[in-house]
This record gives sequence, C-alpha cells and structure tokens, in this order.
Amino acid sequence: MSEAGALSPDPLAGSAFLRACRGLPTERVPVWFMRQAGRSLPEYRAARGEGSILSAFADPELAAELTLQPVRRHEVDAAILFSDIVVPVAAIGFGVDVEQGRGPVVADPFRSEADLARLRPLEPEVDTAHVLETVRILVRELSPRGIPLIGFAGAPFTVASYLVEGGPSKTYVHTKALMRGDPGLWARLLDRLADLALASLRSQIAAGAAAVQLFDSWVGALAPADYHRSVLPFTRKVFEGLADLGVPTIHFGVDTGELLGLMAGAGNTVLGVDWRVPLDEARRRVGPGPALQGNLDPALCLAPWPVLADQTRQVLGQGGGIGHIFNLGHGVLPETDPDVLTRLVELVHSVPADSLAPTS
Amino acid sequence: MSEAGALSPDPLAGSAFLRACRGLPTERVPVWFMRQAGRSLPEYRAARGEGSILSAFADPELAAELTLQPVRRHEVDAAILFSDIVVPVAAIGFGVDVEQGRGPVVADPFRSEADLARLRPLEPEVDTAHVLETVRILVRELSPRGIPLIGFAGAPFTVASYLVEGGPSKTYVHTKALMRGDPGLWARLLDRLADLALASLRSQIAAGAAAVQLFDSWVGALAPADYHRSVLPFTRKVFEGLADLGVPTIHFGVDTGELLGLMAGAGNTVLGVDWRVPLDEARRRVGPGPALQGNLDPALCLAPWPVLADQTRQVLGQGGGIGHIFNLGHGVLPETDPDVLTRLVELVHSVPADSLAPTS
Repeated sequence: MSEAGALSPDPLAGSAFLRACRGLPTERVPVWFMRQAGRSLPEYRAARGEGSILSAFADPELAAELTLQPVRRHEVDAAILFSDIVVPVAAIGFGVDVEQGRGPVVADPFRSEADLARLRPLEPEVDTAHVLETVRILVRELSPRGIPLIGFAGAPFTVASYLVEGGPSKTYVHTKALMRGDPGLWARLLDRLADLALASLRSQIAAGAAAVQLFDSWVGALAPADYHRSVLPFTRKVFEGLADLGVPTIHFGVDTGELLGLMAGAGNTVLGVDWRVPLDEARRRVGPGPALQGNLDPALCLAPWPVLADQTRQVLGQGGGIGHIFNLGHGVLPETDPDVLTRLVELVHSVPADSLAPTS
Repeated sequence: MSEAGALSPDPLAGSAFLRACRGLPTERVPVWFMRQAGRSLPEYRAARGEGSILSAFADPELAAELTLQPVRRHEVDAAILFSDIVVPVAAIGFGVDVEQGRGPVVADPFRSEADLARLRPLEPEVDTAHVLETVRILVRELSPRGIPLIGFAGAPFTVASYLVEGGPSKTYVHTKALMRGDPGLWARLLDRLADLALASLRSQIAAGAAAVQLFDSWVGALAPADYHRSVLPFTRKVFEGLADLGVPTIHFGVDTGELLGLMAGAGNTVLGVDWRVPLDEARRRVGPGPALQGNLDPALCLAPWPVLADQTRQVLGQGGGIGHIFNLGHGVLPETDPDVLTRLVELVHSVPADSLAPTS
C-alpha cells in the first residue's frame, strides 16, 4: 500500500458525488454528464479512429483512455465507464452489433420461447474480462485522485426492447405485443436480462466501481400499469441483488414523469429525472427517499451561454443543494461544444450548496 | 336542397362525435383513429400508387377517396381529411417535401431573421384550393350520412420544429436553441405559423369541416416552463381565433403528461391524451372543462385480441362514458391489421355509454 493510501485508507470518502448519492451534505453540488465520453470530444474522435465501437469497448487501454478524457477536460466529479448497455448480451453470443449513428442492432431478434436458449448466464470474468480489466485500470488511476468510477448496465426492459425490435424503435410495437401477448415468455426474458444486468454490475463493483447506474432509457414508452406489472419486478430484482454491496445505485430513464413514483421504489438509492419534470416537482412525487440526478435539457447546451447559465441555476435551485447530482436529463448531444460543458462544470462548482436550500 | 336535407336541416345534429366533443351524453362512445387513412389499408396502397404524397394531397378526388376508405371499412364516427400538417407551409413556397417513411423534410431550414420573408400569409382559397375542394367533396358525401369531417392543421411549435430542424428530430436541438437563444425571432416565427394554422383551419371550416384538430405532436419534448412561455401564447392565438366559428377544437400531442393542465387552457374544447396518462388521471389534471380524446396505445393493436379488448374496456371505463372520444394515443401504426381496427370500433360501439359512468 502506498504512503498516500496508508494516510487515507478510503480516498473516495470525501467524494461529493458519493456523498450526494447518499443524501449527505456537500460543499458543492457534484456534476457529471451522461455520455460525457464520446463524440462531442475531439480527443475521443482522434483516439477512437475508424474501428468498430464494440472493439473499442474490448480494448481496456483504449476504453480507459476514452473514459478518462472527459474527467481530465471537464473536471467532473465522477467518471463513467466507456461501454454500452448491450455489451453483456453481446458477450454471451446473442448476436448484437452497435452501428455508428444508429445504435444496437440485432440481426435475429428475440421473438419466441426458443430464443431463450440464446440467453445463457453471464460469467463476467470470462465473458467480459476486458470490461473488468478496464474497470481495474480506471480505479487504479482515479481512486487516488478521489474520483469515483460509475459502472452501468442496461435495465431488463430497455435491453429487451433492442433484442425484440432488432434495433432502436420509435414505437416498441413488437416489445409491447410480446409483453402483453405472452406474459409468461416476457417474464422469463426479463428475468434472464435481470440476472445478466445483476451479474455484470456485481462484477464491475467487485472490480472497483464505486457506484452503478441502471439505464432503463426507453421505459417511458410504457403506461404506468404496464410498467408496474411487467417491468418493475425485474428491475427490482437487479437493485435488490445489489443491496448487500452497499454502493449507490442510480435508476434512470427518459420520459418517465408518470413513472417516477414507481421507479423510486425499485430499490435504487438515486433516481434520474429528465428535463420534463422540474426537480422540486420530482421530489414531491418520490418523497424524501432517493437522491435525484439531473436534469438540464441537453439541447440547451447549444443555446447562448446566458440562457444555459440561467437554466443551470434554476436546476440547481430546484435540486435544493442536497441529495442532488447535477447532470443533463439525457446524454450529451454529439453537436455539443465541449468548452460549454467545461464551463457548465465550473458554474455548478461555483455555487455553494448551502445557498440552494429551500427557504420554505 | 335534397328532400332528406329538407326533412333534416342539420344532418350532423345527432353525431355522437360532435356531441361528445361538447360534453353532451351519447348512447355509445364515439370512435375514430388518428392516421386511420393510410398505409395500414390495402385499398390505400392500391389507390395511392407510387406518386409523391404531396401530389396525392393535391388531387381532390384521390384525397377524398383516401379519406373515405377507413370510414367505409371501419364505420368510425368521424372522417379526418387526408392531408399533412406541412401542406399550408409548403403551399406558400417554404420548400417542404414529405418523404415516404421519413416525414416532412426542409432542404433549407429556418435559422435566421431573413427566413421570415419566406413565410408570407396563407391565402387558403388560392394556395390550398385543392384542399378546400377535397373538403367540399367530402362534406357532400359524408354530411347526409351524419358523419362529420375533421379538418386539421399543425400547431406552431410542431411545424416550427420541422422548419428549424430540416426534418424529423429526436432532440429538437436547433429548435430549442432558437426558442431560448433568440426569443424575439422565435415569437415572430411562431406568430406567423399561428396565423398560417388559423387561416387554414378557418378555410376548412368554411368549406364544411365540422370540427378541427390542431396537432402539436412533438411539443411533449419541452419542459413545462418552456411550453408556458414560448409556445402556449401562440397555440392560444389559434384556438381563440376559431372561437367565433363554434366548432369543436381538439388539441393533441404525445408525451404531454406534464403539459396537460396548460394545454387544456389553450382555448380548445377537446384535449387529446396519449397512453401514458390514464384518462381518469388526465381528467383530474385538467378539471371538468374539456372533453378528452384517446388513449389506447397503438402498439397494442398488434397484441392478441383478448389483451386489446381488455385494454379497450379499461380505456372506456377510465373515460367515464361522457365527454370522451375513443381514439388511439397516437396514429395507427402501418403494421396494424385493419380487421383489428374494425373489430375495435365494433367493441367500442357495443358498450352502452351510460354503463361507464363513474360509480364514485
């Protein structure tokens, strides 16, 4: 153990991000950005070159470098692993590719009972050894600097939507038809995807990830009754299966205004909120329990700075300065000027958190 | 005037659709489907052939035939004009095309003050003479049978989103940047688009349309504060400009759970609701004023019939049997089996509306 390590046995103990996830007071509201690693950065485009993105995920040195770029540039309070929610399902051989500019695609979609055989359990140390190696590289690099690494996985519904539709969808028509038309098969599919997410997240935490985010990005396409009956039990299985590890768990989707109350009860410690629901209103819907993450509209990063600054201060005010992790309401848009993100971090860090406490 | 006309001076007086729009009791809940005319019908594909869709809108006999097809086949309670929300802005020469499978596209998007000059006022009888001829053909055909024709237009925000983005968008990044970055220009743009929608709707009503729908399909991408400040005043201008005509006015968008209360106050008589918000919950949000239209998830039309029938009965129950127009929460998906829609109409019509009254 290094001297620094001996003096400070848990270098992450002071992490504002981790404290805010637990609802503890911090001097400044912590900030990171979904999709902070990616095409908005020139150094990303330079390092990535022309190779397939799945091969970039599988190259630990490259994936670690891409993860670190936004931390260096923006001085965000957390890093998020450079990977994709379909990596585990691709790793067990389901047949998933990630197309530039389109997203995950599945040549032979999941449509019947027989397709379950294509979803064997994940053995993380074998199937996603490269991911865990990336995590270990990053933790060695980041922990001494007090920066936590966020691991992540796709939630059962959102991964299922890619497997069933065969790619990104606007309507989720096949997914919903399966969900409602064959609830038994749907349950078996989601149960396997819950196990897959859980195995992946546990392995990332074992390798040193200090927090995890479960992306249920597209679940807002569902009516609340469908979510409650056909999705929540499986999402809950993931979070409950992480509870013994004691790390913060973030639950995120877009378009989830109608679902926030249900999503907050899935066993997660942090709830992501998109820009459609102001954070003070989200707080009313979910009660005092979870920390909230969000929720600046990513499109506003292309508005003039005074507008963006004003909106950022509003989000901070609505977040109330405690139990709030500042983020966008969805991922960084590729068109975003990275200098704007750096300035945004500076602005968030310039506001004392205790100046944001609700006065009521 | 025909003998039937002499005996029954207003053949639409008994229209369940029009009565429900006004909150009056009906024997059965009326039903129609957004995008009921279109690619889900084999007779549509046969009649349309390979020509451009803009040329189909401009052919009154063909557009009337395409409007009538679903009325004949499904026995819905209302027809909706076969047209597109960008027809008026295309008619004044802004340079809009509609691409099969993609939607409206604009080669030279709206980005600066100078582009306002490309938005001259609409002269409906000149610029959209073919649309009005279609309306007149349809009213002659439908009115004696007691079936109202719904005219429509695009709401200022949704039309602006196409003009500014240059086509369909997932993020509305340029639209939002203009809206927040140059509020003066945004106001002038939306004011012109409000005038355009208003002129088009007034002309359709003058030609015989018995009700109109204003499609603000994509406005659910906005936070409530942005909607309130930057969109609602212009939408209200449209509805207030129609008030003297006394026809029902339907206000519709998807993903609008957070906006329903604001949208209900725009001066419309009917509010469309998507499947994310149950109709009884929507009623709580908007109060007793407007009739509600919706809100079956269109994806469920591909689920097995018992599931669809069960969900339909739920929607009818949540609608409460009065002041409710049954519809999907968004347009008919092209993959939909048209026989399912016919059966859905039969089911809705088989339930006595007074059996649906809330018992509380």
